Amino acid sequence: MTHYSRRSFIQTVGSGVGAALTAPAFALPTYPDAEPNRKLNVALCGLGRYANVLKKGFAESQYCRLAGVVTGTPAKAAQWKQDYKLPDKNIYSYQTFDQLKNNPDIDLVYITLPNGLHKEYAIRAAQAGKHVIVEKPMAFTVRDCREMIDACQQAGVQLAVGYRLHYEPHHRELMRLGQQKVFGPVRLIEASLGYQLAGTPPDDWHLKKALAGGGPLMNLGVYCVQSGRYVLGEEPIAVTAQYGPVTLPDLFREVEENITWQLTFPSGAVCTSATTSNCTIDRFYAAADEGYFELNPALSYGPFKGRTSQAAFNFPVVNQQAAMLDDIGKHILAKTPLPDHIAGLEGLKDMRVIEGIYRAADTGSRVTLPPL
Amino acid sequence: MTHYSRRSFIQTVGSGVGAALTAPAFALPTYPDAEPNRKLNVALCGLGRYANVLKKGFAESQYCRLAGVVTGTPAKAAQWKQDYKLPDKNIYSYQTFDQLKNNPDIDLVYITLPNGLHKEYAIRAAQAGKHVIVEKPMAFTVRDCREMIDACQQAGVQLAVGYRLHYEPHHRELMRLGQQKVFGPVRLIEASLGYQLAGTPPDDWHLKKALAGGGPLMNLGVYCVQSGRYVLGEEPIAVTAQYGPVTLPDLFREVEENITWQLTFPSGAVCTSATTSNCTIDRFYAAADEGYFELNPALSYGPFKGRTSQAAFNFPVVNQQAAMLDDIGKHILAKTPLPDHIAGLEGLKDMRVIEGIYRAADTGSRVTLPPL
Repeated sequence: MTHYSRRSFIQTVGSGVGAALTAPAFALPTYPDAEPNRKLNVALCGLGRYANVLKKGFAESQYCRLAGVVTGTPAKAAQWKQDYKLPDKNIYSYQTFDQLKNNPDIDLVYITLPNGLHKEYAIRAAQAGKHVIVEKPMAFTVRDCREMIDACQQAGVQLAVGYRLHYEPHHRELMRLGQQKVFGPVRLIEASLGYQLAGTPPDDWHLKKALAGGGPLMNLGVYCVQSGRYVLGEEPIAVTAQYGPVTLPDLFREVEENITWQLTFPSGAVCTSATTSNCTIDRFYAAADEGYFELNPALSYGPFKGRTSQAAFNFPVVNQQAAMLDDIGKHILAKTPLPDHIAGLEGLKDMRVIEGIYRAADTGSRVTLPPL
Repeated sequence: MTHYSRRSFIQTVGSGVGAALTAPAFALPTYPDAEPNRKLNVALCGLGRYANVLKKGFAESQYCRLAGVVTGTPAKAAQWKQDYKLPDKNIYSYQTFDQLKNNPDIDLVYITLPNGLHKEYAIRAAQAGKHVIVEKPMAFTVRDCREMIDACQQAGVQLAVGYRLHYEPHHRELMRLGQQKVFGPVRLIEASLGYQLAGTPPDDWHLKKALAGGGPLMNLGVYCVQSGRYVLGEEPIAVTAQYGPVTLPDLFREVEENITWQLTFPSGAVCTSATTSNCTIDRFYAAADEGYFELNPALSYGPFKGRTSQAAFNFPVVNQQAAMLDDIGKHILAKTPLPDHIAGLEGLKDMRVIEGIYRAADTGSRVTLPPL
């Protein structure tokens, strides 16, 4: 039985690496026509590690321009000002943040602050009349996510979550394979992501409950959760979860070092995951009635390697951040609503699951997830 | 950093399949000298599916001969008698089983009956003065395993469990990579095994609690449990577990269809597993401080494919059953104790974990495993 059409893949023989395809098989929504010759002016709020990752995204984006920064560190302000030839009026501190409302040359604020500040600054950006991208995890609770969505709606601005894998062609292919049941219904998904954090300075914000909201589940596990959701095209109904042992007690005083969980979906599919700060793991596997499909590596920045029970599959590497910025930029420039997969509600859906995972791990009991 | 020596593997370039090695890197214990020109005479008790798998093992074994059968089905008795030129006196029914004690031409009884009959027939075989191999799972409880071990000890016979993967060279290599910390300490293991049982006749004994003792955990999950144990070289100290949804309610009335579990080991390593009867899954992955190693396929009859974070690895296919029969045969012929990895206590150690998994799933609580 041939599940794949020739159009959708090129089978490779005798090699662990598939041939490159020219386009993802599960196409993104078509873009609206954006205003010609116009880029969205973005102020980056929080110039930490991820802001540096985004530099390449801005460099390759056709629809977003890095037009300003918000930072509490004068040296960073000076460096970014020089690198991006920013006018002084587009450089803000956290004290002057709310004056963004008087700056017509900033259209959107992209919040890459520590997680614990996402909610406050998203709402303040909206109140300043700016569109918002907030990094994942969107916030710490569903209630917080709802407040952020409501604030943006009231302010008449759009809210996006900085999800990058929705724009990655291997992941578009996972969505197609799962949602279109190319190998029959998916029964079991294993998705895990972790990095070794031994050697991290103990004052890193990722280790602080108030700033991070949690350990690797908040930072990495969110990708495992969403991969199960978008491959199945379903929302989970129940969850069990377990904290793992603490092997680096000097670092993990406030947040979990290891956590495993199991999601049950309405179709009966199960998604089981681990996320950890004590080793590297990065894999996705889906078992379906008539075969399997997997990525390994799977959830990091790539490059990814795909395989099904029939053949390897491989797509060109894309700049995940540039693709995301372009999709958001085009929609906002065209004054059309953002696609569901990138809008605030998508962040809330992930947070519904993450809240359930923590509750299940805290109580040791199976948690039935509340309706959306 | 090179973890592998040139002696222990041949790196392959640009291919998902490694070159064949001539010998497993983590060698089996050296064999004692067996009596020359002598084979152990084995009676196979229970001529179901696995008895047929064992035919090839006997055909290739140098130290065991299929010398008799025990069956309740006259047609099977006639067929096996013809195929193996068995004398009538070596053919038993369950009614005549205990008369084995009067037959000096049978040295050992290999019990491939449904799980629920393992304990009774292992003890009766011992009482008939015969050495015993019992298929996995050894029994349903640690207490049962202990009774079997004690009965064999009192009768002065040896007791083996039919573990095949301990003789498979990829698995010997997993043991080496894990126990010798070739990539540093192992932190996280994912090991899962499942087969799609839709279409199975509802009266299959694997679906009956009294005969199977449980669902796929008893039949398949035991391989996941033992892979974690022998790769880490540790015994788990605690377990959490969850039943998955029942998607085939006509079949799974008495035993679980899906179960997931998480084992915690003294070193802080975690082993997370799924076993299922609603899809095919067969994979092992170990994340260590300085790399990973994996098999996929991993736990079935092979052929297996190995990979580390450095390279693919591959060994010749061996007949797992023949290798096991030979090891047991040589030791018994030489009147030396069976190696730990195949003796009754090994089955008890797996059952200690499996009992804990069921208790954790039944209660929804974390179970601290009792000392051995």
